[in-house]
Amino acid sequence: MAETIDPKRFRQALGTFTTGVTIVTTADDAGADVGVTANSFNSVSLEPPMVLWSISRSSRNLKTFLAARYFAVHVLASDQDELASHFSKRGVDRFAGLTLGRGPDGIPLLEGCVARFQCRTAFQYEGGDHVILVGEVLEFDHCDREPLAFKGGRFAFAVPKAAERAVAGAPADAPVAPGAFTPDFLIYQLGRAYHQIFMRIQPELDRRGLGVAEYLALSMLGIRDGRTLAELDTLVSYTGVRITNESGRKLADLGLVVATGESTDCQLSLMPAGQRVLMELLAVATAATDDAESGFDQSESRLLRQFLSRVIVSTDPGLPSPWQS
Amino acid sequence: MAETIDPKRFRQALGTFTTGVTIVTTADDAGADVGVTANSFNSVSLEPPMVLWSISRSSRNLKTFLAARYFAVHVLASDQDELASHFSKRGVDRFAGLTLGRGPDGIPLLEGCVARFQCRTAFQYEGGDHVILVGEVLEFDHCDREPLAFKGGRFAFAVPKAAERAVAGAPADAPVAPGAFTPDFLIYQLGRAYHQIFMRIQPELDRRGLGVAEYLALSMLGIRDGRTLAELDTLVSYTGVRITNESGRKLADLGLVVATGESTDCQLSLMPAGQRVLMELLAVATAATDDAESGFDQSESRLLRQFLSRVIVSTDPGLPSPWQS
Repeated sequence: MAETIDPKRFRQALGTFTTGVTIVTTADDAGADVGVTANSFNSVSLEPPMVLWSISRSSRNLKTFLAARYFAVHVLASDQDELASHFSKRGVDRFAGLTLGRGPDGIPLLEGCVARFQCRTAFQYEGGDHVILVGEVLEFDHCDREPLAFKGGRFAFAVPKAAERAVAGAPADAPVAPGAFTPDFLIYQLGRAYHQIFMRIQPELDRRGLGVAEYLALSMLGIRDGRTLAELDTLVSYTGVRITNESGRKLADLGLVVATGESTDCQLSLMPAGQRVLMELLAVATAATDDAESGFDQSESRLLRQFLSRVIVSTDPGLPSPWQS
Repeated sequence: MAETIDPKRFRQALGTFTTGVTIVTTADDAGADVGVTANSFNSVSLEPPMVLWSISRSSRNLKTFLAARYFAVHVLASDQDELASHFSKRGVDRFAGLTLGRGPDGIPLLEGCVARFQCRTAFQYEGGDHVILVGEVLEFDHCDREPLAFKGGRFAFAVPKAAERAVAGAPADAPVAPGAFTPDFLIYQLGRAYHQIFMRIQPELDRRGLGVAEYLALSMLGIRDGRTLAELDTLVSYTGVRITNESGRKLADLGLVVATGESTDCQLSLMPAGQRVLMELLAVATAATDDAESGFDQSESRLLRQFLSRVIVSTDPGLPSPWQS
């Protein structure tokens, strides 16, 4: 039956199995460093400690690995995707510019990985168009960086699958009327998350006699000082809040900004008191954000930001950016 | 040096390598179904098509797998984490209640997996405290469900690592003033994403003479009809928008609700016209949400909702839920 198997479809089916990404290194007879990217790595044995990976019989490095007494497997970190690609390119010096450690027989050890296994070649087994290399682990080290993953032919992150939780605000099986918003409706979730975090900032504004308009104006001035009321209003108009002459007057009366010019061309510049209030509000916002993400690991926080960034890009009607304008 | 290796630390280091999760099945001499959970699976060869996995020498199923002419590897889907746990329990009937297909020699095939590989046992190799089983793949199938992953001893999702993009609204290396909000500040991102999606709904409200208060009131009535103005106001107050007598009057004047009772105890019930408007607004909100998530795959959409749900739970000051109250 094997002859009916289409290699392309077979590769796709294999790609459904998520893996990490490794670079396996060794040195040849002449002492030259050799390394290849591999995701065929896996654990084999705990006692004795053993791992395996497979190398293609058509690899130009096959001979070197078959002859090597030692090799090192590096489990790559999520920021090492370029290194992974680099170690699968031809005609480049794969080790150029890298800081290397040295293992047994002088085999090269890469830095910045999640885990490294220094192995003695234990077995070499026949495996079709590949050779299965089993190594006995002599030494290893690891750290708690975020590992790189590989799925469906693309680099990926692995994110812990949280135990199924009820969606916030409703039991998972709450009856939902047809034609009604559901608790996992994205705009509802975004609005509720945003407003709940903002509720932490609100008392700080009240305490200082500031409204949301003044808060937004200060935030925008913190990013770039000396904007006019008209500019500030344009920057925040997407929130539905307007920054008016009155906002400018209030900030000036509180001694937080100095205003120069007339009407909407009136330019606001932060006073030291304004800078201080802004710092205090930023600290509260930072604390509120930290609480919002309590229980998030590093990969999750990063992903949440990446997702929101993509939502912002795909819904952007062409708003001016406070960091660019 | 191997004697210095601490098995617990070694296991942790191995756990940094992300894997998928499989269940490998076969049948014993007597025709009884046997299956084990394994994440030691990996691809070996394309031509001939071969895969491998390792089984512990201490497994009670070792003998059966060593004697089996065929076995099947099932790459599990992300909703099969319970099945994975079930197939690693002792003293349970692992196949109880499962719908099974049958492969060569009658080996059991599970349903609902991401990929299945029906294999002929090709090689059995020595691997320390495990035996490495290499199978030649005779048949396989796969679908584009989301696969289950495993990292650091926990079930996980793998999410594509998007090419590094500039954070929305600013080049990645834009100079950011100290003490100022950054483009990846969570509250900024949440607010901007929320407001940008809402900007898509706003014209629909304008066209119908509705304000945000009326929109929120209709949404809440869609989830449960017949609430009082006071109840509606309590439900949405976290947004900073208030639902007043005036909101009730406006909705009644437009023929969208019928109001019974006095003042804030006044109870609103959706009229057919109100139900229709709500459906139309919901359709616009759904389209806006779809656009917001354009380019998201299924795992990413699910994760974004899970993240937001967690943010909502961890920042919830005890707000009433429209689905429960």
